[in-house]
Amino acid sequence: MAICLQSPLKPISLSPQSTHSAVFKSKPFICNLSLSSPNTQLANEPDPVFTSVRTFAPATIANLGPGFDFLGCAVDGVGDFVSLSVDPSVHPGQIAIANISGAAASAKKLTKNPLFNCAGIAAIAAMKLLGIRSVGLSLSLEKGLPLGSGLGSSAASAAAAAVAVNEIFGRKLSASELVQAGLESEAKVSGYHADNIAPAILGGFVLIRNYEPLDLMELKFPVEKELFFVLVSPDFEAPTKKMRAALPEEIGMPHHVWNCSQAGALVAAVLMGDLEGLGKALSSDLIVEPRRAPLIPGMEGVKKAAIEAGAFGCTISGAGPTAVAVTDGEERGREIGERMVEAFWKEGNLKAVAMVKRLDRVGARVVSSIPG
Amino acid sequence: MAICLQSPLKPISLSPQSTHSAVFKSKPFICNLSLSSPNTQLANEPDPVFTSVRTFAPATIANLGPGFDFLGCAVDGVGDFVSLSVDPSVHPGQIAIANISGAAASAKKLTKNPLFNCAGIAAIAAMKLLGIRSVGLSLSLEKGLPLGSGLGSSAASAAAAAVAVNEIFGRKLSASELVQAGLESEAKVSGYHADNIAPAILGGFVLIRNYEPLDLMELKFPVEKELFFVLVSPDFEAPTKKMRAALPEEIGMPHHVWNCSQAGALVAAVLMGDLEGLGKALSSDLIVEPRRAPLIPGMEGVKKAAIEAGAFGCTISGAGPTAVAVTDGEERGREIGERMVEAFWKEGNLKAVAMVKRLDRVGARVVSSIPG
Repeated sequence: MAICLQSPLKPISLSPQSTHSAVFKSKPFICNLSLSSPNTQLANEPDPVFTSVRTFAPATIANLGPGFDFLGCAVDGVGDFVSLSVDPSVHPGQIAIANISGAAASAKKLTKNPLFNCAGIAAIAAMKLLGIRSVGLSLSLEKGLPLGSGLGSSAASAAAAAVAVNEIFGRKLSASELVQAGLESEAKVSGYHADNIAPAILGGFVLIRNYEPLDLMELKFPVEKELFFVLVSPDFEAPTKKMRAALPEEIGMPHHVWNCSQAGALVAAVLMGDLEGLGKALSSDLIVEPRRAPLIPGMEGVKKAAIEAGAFGCTISGAGPTAVAVTDGEERGREIGERMVEAFWKEGNLKAVAMVKRLDRVGARVVSSIPG
Repeated sequence: MAICLQSPLKPISLSPQSTHSAVFKSKPFICNLSLSSPNTQLANEPDPVFTSVRTFAPATIANLGPGFDFLGCAVDGVGDFVSLSVDPSVHPGQIAIANISGAAASAKKLTKNPLFNCAGIAAIAAMKLLGIRSVGLSLSLEKGLPLGSGLGSSAASAAAAAVAVNEIFGRKLSASELVQAGLESEAKVSGYHADNIAPAILGGFVLIRNYEPLDLMELKFPVEKELFFVLVSPDFEAPTKKMRAALPEEIGMPHHVWNCSQAGALVAAVLMGDLEGLGKALSSDLIVEPRRAPLIPGMEGVKKAAIEAGAFGCTISGAGPTAVAVTDGEERGREIGERMVEAFWKEGNLKAVAMVKRLDRVGARVVSSIPG
């Protein structure tokens, strides 16, 4: 856990509570990274390589059917941007969030206090891993993703921020360390799970094999194959507490064996580029989806509509309310999306919007940079 | 379910009870495949292509750690042989078991009644699938595998028999149909599970995705990589009833998620040829192995000894009592085997024998044939 300071001598332990909705109005928020003097540069503290960088991190789909809580993947072309600059007006070793913008109305809800903002927490964690004490940074966040949609909004912000810090200081951190930095953020705002942050950093499909130590498997979907996600988000706030409470505490052995076998089949289908198998496995969860789908009005009908329209499979993205279907073509994806939107309206009385996106194979990336 | 006859007009429904230990002394045992006249050849009934064939089917390892009940693999160079001949002295459409032999002392326990013998049941099922009514067959079984060792003894007999019948009549059945025939045998003698019979037929690693309809995924371990199994069988009869009773009925969500993720990692490691990852996943079961290992004297110490000797991983083969470890070299495998044998003696007071075998990538096969 990061120990941060609002004044040099008053350490604060960060609280793990969710702070997406918290609004902190006093400014500026600053965070030191150690109790040592901020002007004492350590021998191994890296110098900034850039004065400014701009990064992007993609949306992600976690809880992939039977891959609940350990398998996620990244979605191309939608996500969050972070602009990060060396800022002499920020106290050395500290970070300030200058601006939060974005089409998503919910961006307004986000705090600029870096101690409680996804991007801020991840940036602080990355600075801590790098041992930054001599340089102050200023961060701006552009939200492309709405909060609470089930598309890894918090992870996208955290990933973009961690990668931006790493880039400015010359890429000293490994991918695993970047995930670790992002995981600190996830733990504080949405729970200690890496199935959004790992694919947001690494791209593609990522299996979380272990947390102690963090052990990730990148599952390469064959480059010669196309994979499209149809993401349909209804105008509905998935009740997070209810979504968690819906999970069974105990699972009967037959359902356990079934879901395990489907998880194995899902992993195999990803690696073999078997889209039909991937869709079948995605649709096959008998443990989580049957408990959660009834809490999202129309979800069962939406899944049925997706399959009838030719999707290989369909399930809930993350903890919802977005529904995700898979297909192999963009045009077919649009047709499937239309049927899913109709079904949300007919079966759940909910307005919804659809988008068709490719698998993101890259993960968080640098968009531009200005040399120092 | 096959309907068989001891006399042409008295149908018998086969009982699902285990018959490994049953001894039937009256002979000959015959089995018709339908209620129609045995001399009426159907238009689509295939003619025999060979007068005699000899087949082999390999040992198999099921319950592969977190792959419990849905993932198995085949082991090269150890298994059962079946010799099958067109026999005019056997009533058309019927099969007789002429001989059962083999080094395994337990071969003597096996019945020659084809209705209750693994090879007989699978042969009958294959004949039924082919619609054989005009040709009588005589089968001899050579057991290379002891019964109840956890190495798929019954599946090896069934696989060799089904493949022999299919070969004699010109290979009309698909691999999936052969597995279905073998599964009829498994259901009657050791339970309705395909994680031994499927790899015994297909070779390599096989994931059982579904039973209705039967849906198998062959997981190709990369051909350029070597994979050795160290199989150590103690002189101990694993108490099957206790082994089944030891399984938990309910599984807590954290353990379910853990085992699911390890199952996914195991599948990925197989497909990527990642031996270290394969071993790690194999060793990681938190649900079945911790309940069963204490029922096999010394097993926990044997696993520890295998890992200390350099094995990538170790678990129980099938329902035991054989322990299986994985490694990448034959010589290293022999050393690991020695340590495991010592541990069975020291920790469990059990004599044990070790063998080091490659992954079998072929499955049940024809060894020789005599054209008709």
